[in-house]
Amino acid sequence: MEQEPLEFWFEFASTYSYPAAMRIEAVAAEAGIRVQWRPFLLGPIFASQGWGDSPFNLYPLKGRYMWHDLERLCEKYEIPFRRPSKFPRSGLLAARVALVAAAEPWCPRFVRAVFRANFAEDREISRTETIAEILATLGQPPREVLARAEAPENKQRLREQNQWAVVQDIFGAPTMIVGKELFWGNDRLEDAIAFHLRAMRSSAH
Amino acid sequence: MEQEPLEFWFEFASTYSYPAAMRIEAVAAEAGIRVQWRPFLLGPIFASQGWGDSPFNLYPLKGRYMWHDLERLCEKYEIPFRRPSKFPRSGLLAARVALVAAAEPWCPRFVRAVFRANFAEDREISRTETIAEILATLGQPPREVLARAEAPENKQRLREQNQWAVVQDIFGAPTMIVGKELFWGNDRLEDAIAFHLRAMRSSAH
Repeated sequence: MEQEPLEFWFEFASTYSYPAAMRIEAVAAEAGIRVQWRPFLLGPIFASQGWGDSPFNLYPLKGRYMWHDLERLCEKYEIPFRRPSKFPRSGLLAARVALVAAAEPWCPRFVRAVFRANFAEDREISRTETIAEILATLGQPPREVLARAEAPENKQRLREQNQWAVVQDIFGAPTMIVGKELFWGNDRLEDAIAFHLRAMRSSAH
Repeated sequence: MEQEPLEFWFEFASTYSYPAAMRIEAVAAEAGIRVQWRPFLLGPIFASQGWGDSPFNLYPLKGRYMWHDLERLCEKYEIPFRRPSKFPRSGLLAARVALVAAAEPWCPRFVRAVFRANFAEDREISRTETIAEILATLGQPPREVLARAEAPENKQRLREQNQWAVVQDIFGAPTMIVGKELFWGNDRLEDAIAFHLRAMRSSAH
């Protein structure tokens, strides 16, 4: 029986998704756990909570703290960081591409490259040119991949992925899911891994 | 020159203040750091952000997750937990007593006993009887301490402590402060300690 993966639900505009996305593959690999990459969009989820913008913009004190905290965290994890001149940037196009990539081996590298572009290089990830450049760097044919990403079926798949997020009570990003157990935030990555290991051990008995 | 303390800003109604309050003395002592106990009230701070209730009540999905997460965390830290039948409970009286206690050796024990009463024993910490019982258990004269807590000067001191929280950009609890550096949440306790140790080391040079 194949091992259950650790589901990693992330949004390219989400600040704390950045360190989690940069770390998860290495941390999971060390524990022998497979990661399932699950791009989704926070916009519709925040809207259903009555927020028309990121809570970090709606609550400036919290927002100011978050940027400082994120910088501190990135330093701790040795991840490059430069505060984006625009926040949040739309992660829609990148999420569509990540959904196309999800089952392919270049997915983790694509995800990390987009996060780096947003949070370390201050590039406009909502622009087709940025995503095309990233794809080219990874040896993927930009035009072809973008066409698959923008195809109606794929757009619909992303909508369904978002509905699935709602069904699972996801309210923020990143969210790690193991079975039915939710872990919210980069701060819970290690706990999610530990939970997964315990679950594997107990199902082996 | 006396070592700068780690300021621990907490609210007795705050769920994530609970594990932090239970852990901080031991964690700080191990690092050779003194804790300054700083009770305050979240109510006025939430009100200034437009919230008339705990955000965990205003956003039920997040609230449901928080209770589960808190239970998981307490298990990890081996701290007793029982979900309070009422949330939030007013921490006003307990905060006034904690302010009286702040400079006295029984302060940490008082703080932990109140948190335990709220989050492990489901007791009504807003009631004078509960606080009096806790004081008696600690060998403190309840009537005398309560009189000092409810004296106009002490009420005013708590108001000023809250204004000081606002001046320092505190927006939630628990918050650890080292110099001018803020760390928000039980999840940042270890980072606050590490920052304090680095600051001590560099000021020793």
